[in-house]
Amino acid sequence: MKLISGGVCAPKGFKAGGIWCGIKASSKKRDLALIYSEKSCTAAAMFTANRVKAASVIVSQKHVAGGKLHAVIANSGNANACTGEAGLAAANRMAELAADEFAVPAETVAVASTGVIGVPLPIAAIENSIEALANSLRGDEAGHAAALEAIMTTDTRKKEISVEIEGGARIGGMAKGSGMIHPNMATMLCFLTTDVSISRELLEASLRRAVGRSFNRVTVDGDTSTNDMALIMANGASGVTVAAGSAEYEAFSLALEAACVSLARAMARDGEGATKLVTVTVNGAADEKTAETLAKAVASSSLVKAACFGADANWGRILCAMGYSGAEFDPDNTNVSFKSKTGELAVFSKGMPIQFPEDTAKQILSEEEIEILISAGEGGGSATAWGCDLTYDYVKINGDYRS
Amino acid sequence: MKLISGGVCAPKGFKAGGIWCGIKASSKKRDLALIYSEKSCTAAAMFTANRVKAASVIVSQKHVAGGKLHAVIANSGNANACTGEAGLAAANRMAELAADEFAVPAETVAVASTGVIGVPLPIAAIENSIEALANSLRGDEAGHAAALEAIMTTDTRKKEISVEIEGGARIGGMAKGSGMIHPNMATMLCFLTTDVSISRELLEASLRRAVGRSFNRVTVDGDTSTNDMALIMANGASGVTVAAGSAEYEAFSLALEAACVSLARAMARDGEGATKLVTVTVNGAADEKTAETLAKAVASSSLVKAACFGADANWGRILCAMGYSGAEFDPDNTNVSFKSKTGELAVFSKGMPIQFPEDTAKQILSEEEIEILISAGEGGGSATAWGCDLTYDYVKINGDYRS
Repeated sequence: MKLISGGVCAPKGFKAGGIWCGIKASSKKRDLALIYSEKSCTAAAMFTANRVKAASVIVSQKHVAGGKLHAVIANSGNANACTGEAGLAAANRMAELAADEFAVPAETVAVASTGVIGVPLPIAAIENSIEALANSLRGDEAGHAAALEAIMTTDTRKKEISVEIEGGARIGGMAKGSGMIHPNMATMLCFLTTDVSISRELLEASLRRAVGRSFNRVTVDGDTSTNDMALIMANGASGVTVAAGSAEYEAFSLALEAACVSLARAMARDGEGATKLVTVTVNGAADEKTAETLAKAVASSSLVKAACFGADANWGRILCAMGYSGAEFDPDNTNVSFKSKTGELAVFSKGMPIQFPEDTAKQILSEEEIEILISAGEGGGSATAWGCDLTYDYVKINGDYRS
Repeated sequence: MKLISGGVCAPKGFKAGGIWCGIKASSKKRDLALIYSEKSCTAAAMFTANRVKAASVIVSQKHVAGGKLHAVIANSGNANACTGEAGLAAANRMAELAADEFAVPAETVAVASTGVIGVPLPIAAIENSIEALANSLRGDEAGHAAALEAIMTTDTRKKEISVEIEGGARIGGMAKGSGMIHPNMATMLCFLTTDVSISRELLEASLRRAVGRSFNRVTVDGDTSTNDMALIMANGASGVTVAAGSAEYEAFSLALEAACVSLARAMARDGEGATKLVTVTVNGAADEKTAETLAKAVASSSLVKAACFGADANWGRILCAMGYSGAEFDPDNTNVSFKSKTGELAVFSKGMPIQFPEDTAKQILSEEEIEILISAGEGGGSATAWGCDLTYDYVKINGDYRS
């Protein structure tokens, strides 16, 4: 597997585009995106677990259930959530408008939205711009860059990835998400493309595993949103077939997981107001699920996050978060260390603090990427979770989002 | 039931005191407290659910299990948690020192600690001051005020309550806690006294219900600590007996719940860096448990808390938090309004937003005490949770707590 350029346009047969249609009325930034494959795609997706679901999620769940997609149309600036029957009609209309441009069934178009909740989606703006959107489709850099811009909201960084697997098949991806990110996928959109040929069942299994080990282990502030989805379309254009139990399947699944982890890390790094990426790795837990629960609890703790912001080697808060996570572990057999590119420092060993030089700790924790390494000394379960620090800017950004 | 003065010294036969013994080395603020009843007390307590338990919790659990207490000794400035065997020995020694002063068994003394984790407790400082502590005991205002001061850490307000129940029996209480407060009782200490005569079982049942409806519905930042306890001692000095199923029991339980709610509200109001008390009330849920889950999810949401700080009537975040809480409710049958002393404003009704004047909303949400009222339209379950806003100062206070 190697990194390549091209984002969602890297796999053969995919085009992307993005325009401003008028939803982001004041900023006039791109707000409408399209990813399209002429060849019909096998599709799989995972959606928000929130009981309140945006209209786009309801429509896309239905369309993805059909198993075949040609395109995904996505808007930013308006979440089309809590908008009642009119919202549902608008989401269906979005699919229909894109489908009509390519003369494909509306059921083969997925719909995504992100932005403010509870404001009617100005569907006329999309109707008026659908032709321009279709015309914006390109298979090159400009195409996927425009599409990515058009799904961004408070994101400060572009989140893209593309990889080539041995044998020549490719996977591409783009994502948006900064605030409200949490285990179980909050206000994040992730669109993945691939040119392998693969069954619906295998694609879904690969996506589920990849999302479980990436986006679902990212936490920014513990909230989860009404609009999240991670969607993958496989058009088979590479000629590579991925069959159950094959070496190709293993390679594809690993590459998909790596692509999702890369996007997940980028989201954590771009957490609202964040200055640091905090990676929490738990080894030696009873099993992977236990390790995941412990790692997420540490990465989610407001006190740990604030300590990371302040470069304070506060291992007590780490132990405390592990303790209230509900997961089994033995504090008396637990080790904790901090790590960054300047070095690694053990601060807690077998239930007791270790004396450490505060200036060394400060130096390690002042880096932009810091790691919290925990050994639970119980078994072979490992997991990594990603988060960020809690900063003044988080409060500022979220103190008055709507105005 | 009426409010009276006196705190934990309001019930007959209780004395309290507090001194500086040297644990808070630099600030020289009071750091050692004692509450004492010459008459042996029936006792009940609830302790942290954190898997990592401070030595004081382990010792007090054992002593309270005996059912009889004469005193509780508490220090601030050092949590005596993650301190190994030496920590356990120190906690036992604290009980022993206090017990020796009054010639009572060590098993009749509960121990509590709050402060920094992982630093050995300087037990010599307590040994040297135990006589002075015993001599500081008084039944008046100065006594309970000194004891309260001696358990405070980052608290900015004093949290005390005392009530007299019809018939003359009394309940008094003091609490500390500002940061790390969360459902399931985080870094909070609460000591309650009463002069009723009551069985161990009834006292525990009353305390459990009162704590469940008060402290366990307070949230500041989602973390829970290693040291929490809520403890009640009943010495029977009033001559009032509280028997199962009696009117006295009902009155006592209601008064205890009211006292705990008062202290819980004070803790939420004093959340680290908080500028506002946020009360979330859910009515019309399927049952009380569902209502509690919904109310806590809203009160705990970092995004809702930041919006409260910014006086932003962001009902979308409220719906979103309800949605990811896991509790059953019907968004299409949900109503939300904001309330404070300046008025009440409905913002969401039956699944759809209501147009509202932003300046009215701003005015309501700019008060120091604001309410979020939610009707889930499903049944008769109600619950109230208390929290606070998320502010720049929270980040500042917690960015570097240890130094």
